[in-house]
Amino acid sequence: MNNTLYPAPLYTFLSLCQREALPKEVLDCGAGGANPPLNLFCAYGYRAAGVEIDPQRAQLAREAARQHGFTVDIREADMRRLPFADQSFSFVYSYNSVFHLSKADIAAAIAEMRRVLRPGGLFYVNFLSVDDGGFGEGQPLEKGEFLQEEDRGLVLHSYFEDDEGDCYFDGMQTLIKEKRARRQLHSDGQVYRMAFLDYMLRV
Amino acid sequence: MNNTLYPAPLYTFLSLCQREALPKEVLDCGAGGANPPLNLFCAYGYRAAGVEIDPQRAQLAREAARQHGFTVDIREADMRRLPFADQSFSFVYSYNSVFHLSKADIAAAIAEMRRVLRPGGLFYVNFLSVDDGGFGEGQPLEKGEFLQEEDRGLVLHSYFEDDEGDCYFDGMQTLIKEKRARRQLHSDGQVYRMAFLDYMLRV
Repeated sequence: MNNTLYPAPLYTFLSLCQREALPKEVLDCGAGGANPPLNLFCAYGYRAAGVEIDPQRAQLAREAARQHGFTVDIREADMRRLPFADQSFSFVYSYNSVFHLSKADIAAAIAEMRRVLRPGGLFYVNFLSVDDGGFGEGQPLEKGEFLQEEDRGLVLHSYFEDDEGDCYFDGMQTLIKEKRARRQLHSDGQVYRMAFLDYMLRV
Repeated sequence: MNNTLYPAPLYTFLSLCQREALPKEVLDCGAGGANPPLNLFCAYGYRAAGVEIDPQRAQLAREAARQHGFTVDIREADMRRLPFADQSFSFVYSYNSVFHLSKADIAAAIAEMRRVLRPGGLFYVNFLSVDDGGFGEGQPLEKGEFLQEEDRGLVLHSYFEDDEGDCYFDGMQTLIKEKRARRQLHSDGQVYRMAFLDYMLRV
């Protein structure tokens, strides 16, 4: 058995997808890394594709899929210009990814994700909340956007008010909108405050 | 493969348990129903036990385990008096259950769960938040407690302020405390407001 575990909201999204009669075809936007959630969908019989802008992370995801015996189509591409035809997927998700874009670029990326979704398809995306402990840190850019120091250099983080993200989803049906505000003890002994806004919608 | 899906927070708790070096022995308090989360733990190699006060729901859980080829020890018992010796389990959880008790009884139940946990063991429990849509409905009893009409008759629901539940966990280490506030579209076309407070702790 595949004993890997994935971020909890993806199980919620998968359980919504499982109730649909659409073809089991899913796209992950921000699909890289050593434990790609596409493997979870593969384990449930989905044809899985992904885009990842970082070649190294794309390669890690391909290797992780291969180790589990899964075939995934992971392309090095920008989620603001998805290399897929209109209405190619029943399900599209982007977990902990779009908030590394500016809010203007998030609008462009979400428009692209909507373009490649079939009518009636399901979409999951999450944002950082302004209640996250990182809000306000680093160099401010546009409203709620900060350039923050990470191991890999300066990284953009966009933070959202509770209903600010709603504007991206005009004409879509909101199935679930959830705010998750967490205090978590890390191995360094510090307590981190994390807060996310999750949307699960129907096109 | 076992294709069943479970409530998302249980995957988070399982992923914490998986990092521990303790024996894989887990107890579910409120373990009944047709899709018991104990099966998730069984699939990951845990020895699983549960208590359930409703004989019919206990039987459903036993049958669901058998269908998956799992052996579980589900007892018809009251979580305020657990039929297990001190320090019998590495992991104890109670999902969407204790809030059907009064707050005084919740204290008794949590004291029992702590009693059966090994030193260093992990504990997960969740509460209804006062931000849940059901808060204030029905017949008020003690503070935040309401007797509410359900299909199965009058059912007690206890609701908690954000930090009100902290008092139950004196001397335990909080690993994760999360508030999940959700708006969810149901099949009847209504949008329901749900809010929970999840605690994951070390004894």
